[in-house]
Amino acid sequence: MTTVQVGCDLMYSVTNPTSFLFNVAAARTAHQTIREETLQLNPYIKYETSSLGTEDIQVYRLYVEPCDLQLQYRANVDLYPEIYDTSGIIETGYSQLPNEVLPYLSPSRYCESDRLTHFALRMFGNAEPGFSRVTAICDWINSNLDYEAGSTGESTSACDVLIQRVGVCRDYAHLAIALCRALCIPARYISGYAVALQPPDFHGFFEAYLGSRWYLFDATRMAPVQGFVRIGTGRDAADASFATIIGEATLTYMAVWAEQTEPNQITNQPVSPSAVSTTKS
Amino acid sequence: MTTVQVGCDLMYSVTNPTSFLFNVAAARTAHQTIREETLQLNPYIKYETSSLGTEDIQVYRLYVEPCDLQLQYRANVDLYPEIYDTSGIIETGYSQLPNEVLPYLSPSRYCESDRLTHFALRMFGNAEPGFSRVTAICDWINSNLDYEAGSTGESTSACDVLIQRVGVCRDYAHLAIALCRALCIPARYISGYAVALQPPDFHGFFEAYLGSRWYLFDATRMAPVQGFVRIGTGRDAADASFATIIGEATLTYMAVWAEQTEPNQITNQPVSPSAVSTTKS
Amino acid sequence: MTTVQVGCDLMYSVTNPTSFLFNVAAARTAHQTIREETLQLNPYIKYETSSLGTEDIQVYRLYVEPCDLQLQYRANVDLYPEIYDTSGIIETGYSQLPNEVLPYLSPSRYCESDRLTHFALRMFGNAEPGFSRVTAICDWINSNLDYEAGSTGESTSACDVLIQRVGVCRDYAHLAIALCRALCIPARYISGYAVALQPPDFHGFFEAYLGSRWYLFDATRMAPVQGFVRIGTGRDAADASFATIIGEATLTYMAVWAEQTEPNQITNQPVSPSAVSTTKS
Amino acid sequence: MTTVQVGCDLMYSVTNPTSFLFNVAAARTAHQTIREETLQLNPYIKYETSSLGTEDIQVYRLYVEPCDLQLQYRANVDLYPEIYDTSGIIETGYSQLPNEVLPYLSPSRYCESDRLTHFALRMFGNAEPGFSRVTAICDWINSNLDYEAGSTGESTSACDVLIQRVGVCRDYAHLAIALCRALCIPARYISGYAVALQPPDFHGFFEAYLGSRWYLFDATRMAPVQGFVRIGTGRDAADASFATIIGEATLTYMAVWAEQTEPNQITNQPVSPSAVSTTKS
Repeated sequence: MTTVQVGCDLMYSVTNPTSFLFNVAAARTAHQTIREETLQLNPYIKYETSSLGTEDIQVYRLYVEPCDLQLQYRANVDLYPEIYDTSGIIETGYSQLPNEVLPYLSPSRYCESDRLTHFALRMFGNAEPGFSRVTAICDWINSNLDYEAGSTGESTSACDVLIQRVGVCRDYAHLAIALCRALCIPARYISGYAVALQPPDFHGFFEAYLGSRWYLFDATRMAPVQGFVRIGTGRDAADASFATIIGEATLTYMAVWAEQTEPNQITNQPVSPSAVSTTKS
Repeated sequence: MTTVQVGCDLMYSVTNPTSFLFNVAAARTAHQTIREETLQLNPYIKYETSSLGTEDIQVYRLYVEPCDLQLQYRANVDLYPEIYDTSGIIETGYSQLPNEVLPYLSPSRYCESDRLTHFALRMFGNAEPGFSRVTAICDWINSNLDYEAGSTGESTSACDVLIQRVGVCRDYAHLAIALCRALCIPARYISGYAVALQPPDFHGFFEAYLGSRWYLFDATRMAPVQGFVRIGTGRDAADASFATIIGEATLTYMAVWAEQTEPNQITNQPVSPSAVSTTKS
Repeated sequence: MTTVQVGCDLMYSVTNPTSFLFNVAAARTAHQTIREETLQLNPYIKYETSSLGTEDIQVYRLYVEPCDLQLQYRANVDLYPEIYDTSGIIETGYSQLPNEVLPYLSPSRYCESDRLTHFALRMFGNAEPGFSRVTAICDWINSNLDYEAGSTGESTSACDVLIQRVGVCRDYAHLAIALCRALCIPARYISGYAVALQPPDFHGFFEAYLGSRWYLFDATRMAPVQGFVRIGTGRDAADASFATIIGEATLTYMAVWAEQTEPNQITNQPVSPSAVSTTKS
Repeated sequence: MTTVQVGCDLMYSVTNPTSFLFNVAAARTAHQTIREETLQLNPYIKYETSSLGTEDIQVYRLYVEPCDLQLQYRANVDLYPEIYDTSGIIETGYSQLPNEVLPYLSPSRYCESDRLTHFALRMFGNAEPGFSRVTAICDWINSNLDYEAGSTGESTSACDVLIQRVGVCRDYAHLAIALCRALCIPARYISGYAVALQPPDFHGFFEAYLGSRWYLFDATRMAPVQGFVRIGTGRDAADASFATIIGEATLTYMAVWAEQTEPNQITNQPVSPSAVSTTKS
């Protein structure tokens, strides 16, 4: 078990009545429990806390008149990642996949797996199926993309990134997800906090469905997966934005952090050859 | 109540071991009950019937060795569409939308609503919100696209169609869905059978979430919505293919039909100004 | 005849040895003569003046060591536009088009006419061929796009603009060119100075080949075509950038102007129904 | 010197009055002379022979009433390729490039070099400049694409091919051209006949401008460059189609061939490390 203190401060200049959906709270899962948690809004605004989907994602929804809005989220989260020996983790044949993971095989807005079938088979078709194939995809992405803040935008997709060869964490995840799906491996997008991420920010990583569970991967390799605190889960980043804004508001300040406070020190060493699962299903 | 007899015959030349997921069965909803239903596979192959998602979608999954596979599906379906006066159907503000419809606001593979915001606001921003706005979108699509069998393909998206101005039912639906989402109206793709559709085929239509329920729309206006028999529901056609094939198989024959067998004759007259809801949720 | 004083001031912070090609000088054509012209570079750098293509385009080429570079271009240009009655201007059948205009029928980087055939025929296929059809294209673009500085970028193409419905002068020109080519009307991109343009800037407009000559059009309608001073000509903006930079330099200041100094006042009234040709060939 | 007999038979079903521009004739260059040449049209139709551009490209233009049209082109062509030692062939700095090659640095419809800058620099930025860098690009393309007839279409671009990793000769050439331009090496598309090409067809290859001349390259490596007979030259395939058809006609038969008839046997051995130039300029 590891305890991580996470939080974010967000400030918005709201210039018209605006609805917000904030997806910044740590999710409630069998491997991630919330010890304490606070949300402060300044000025105080009535908000609704509700669950989204099946992963016990918790979102805050509010409706705001023009103002300068400050959101402060803090939580202490206990992480109980399950660590597996990677060698025994195989892929599940299509006919054995549970129905609920099938949507994560479909192409999505930012993961056009349908266009990448030939490429994926050509590059990874002969790789050993299972955990090692997904690792090979991450290896390739890590070697063939450059991480550069600000190099991509809201509309950048996996195919765009494959052409440009430069992106940020969400782009790395999108390309990995698209390649997995093209190989018939269910894959999905995870947003979260990440211990030891430099510079600190929200992070985008992904899960692949292997054997009978979801395993965490980070194609950027910028932080150890054991220190990831899950926020949202989706087909791609379109489903897991930290703030959905319907109205007129401008982000004027943003700080995000994740720090380990309890033993079992998570270090930013090269990700070990261990497989990490943090999803109950 | 109307009773519709639907069915399809599909033949495949299977040249390698192949997994199939068939999404051809009429869904079980509060407004659509299955009187009788048969599935025949020739040669006989053990298949699994399972439910997908929350809409009581029923899919058939099978694993087939090389052979010539014939699938015959038949069902008698009772339809109980709810008809509403369209004038009172308003849009629901973002902050009032139930969590479970939010995924249908996200852009998806074939409905890039994020790229269509300016266009949608420009064209439909001043239209009266509610049922009439979605109708205006359908009107525009109907006037500005040409229906032409074979004009588009698997990878054609809403933006492609907006450029080409030619497509088939799935393209009409994708563009309508993308425009709805760009205006913050949840919208989703429905596959199904359609009485009076010429030539007979599987049909793609869509639902928009207005007030507190989903309403059926068909941007092609090729068949009356009261005669639609729902099969699958999804973010776009990527989620509702009638056959997902992992392996090596070629479709060699296909016939699809939907015929009304009981009174309350559904005619192929211009769609009336009535709003039709056939979803329980 | 009209005399126009044009000029530009450009400043660059050059941080590595850099080659520049400046395409800011008024072209020498039968309808546009240069009364006087000066180029000042500060610090003084040896440059080469050379002609590009067949339209007597004049470019400046220089190689610069790291410095703060200032370019000042000034010219007095006499314009002798030929004005024709628009009613007699017809389209030229493909088999009668001179060889040298054929390249302007090909799709180009930012004018994907090959993707717009169906759209163009649908919208403008029944319009009266000739000057009035190109005018109809400009009318449509003008009514269906919003001009918004900064709304598009270097990689934005005609198809992108058709989706977004917002752009700047180069985008308006690209879409018009693409639609003309899709209808088998040769069309090309012109960069230049424009009297009465607000705010002052380099301007992008286009020429269509009708009858036996090129006619000027401006789909933005932001300035009268009689007051355009031609700089470069190309298949699209890729060929007519005011500055091509190979190396490392940042634009730090930019001012552009075009003012009429002699009679026959050019006013910014709605473009008259006169056809303007300013190209010799 | 090598003599090559080239030819093609094309048949069209012309169902409406149609203009054709055929670009099938061997070009007249300093390194390629036409010994004898015949064009037969059946039924006989008056045609115009004219030159296109500066490379002595010869095209046939005709206007045809509905009929079954047969075109038979035959020529004996003497090839005098200049062979250079590749080791001394360097790249020319941007400031030294002649004006007339500059258009071949611009991105074009099927060669979006502007989108490939990061990728090109990342992959080939550290390669030795000159002939060997272009060879490295061809090597990479050859290793990373699969040649598959029918895998791509008219609208497929270099970026599409980079994603799909499968294509035909024109796609190989487009990607090579785009990568060269992204590295500031002028490059252009060549259509032609190719000795020893299997199966026989028109071929698409490319030229890169190095030192002070254009050198021939074939990224497919399917035939020796010494046996290429040039037809057309352009920015990309949009400029060099073997038949441009304005009207309504369907290709019903096509045969193409190129056979060496004189000594200095051209073999289909791996392309030697010699640099071949066949352009006068």
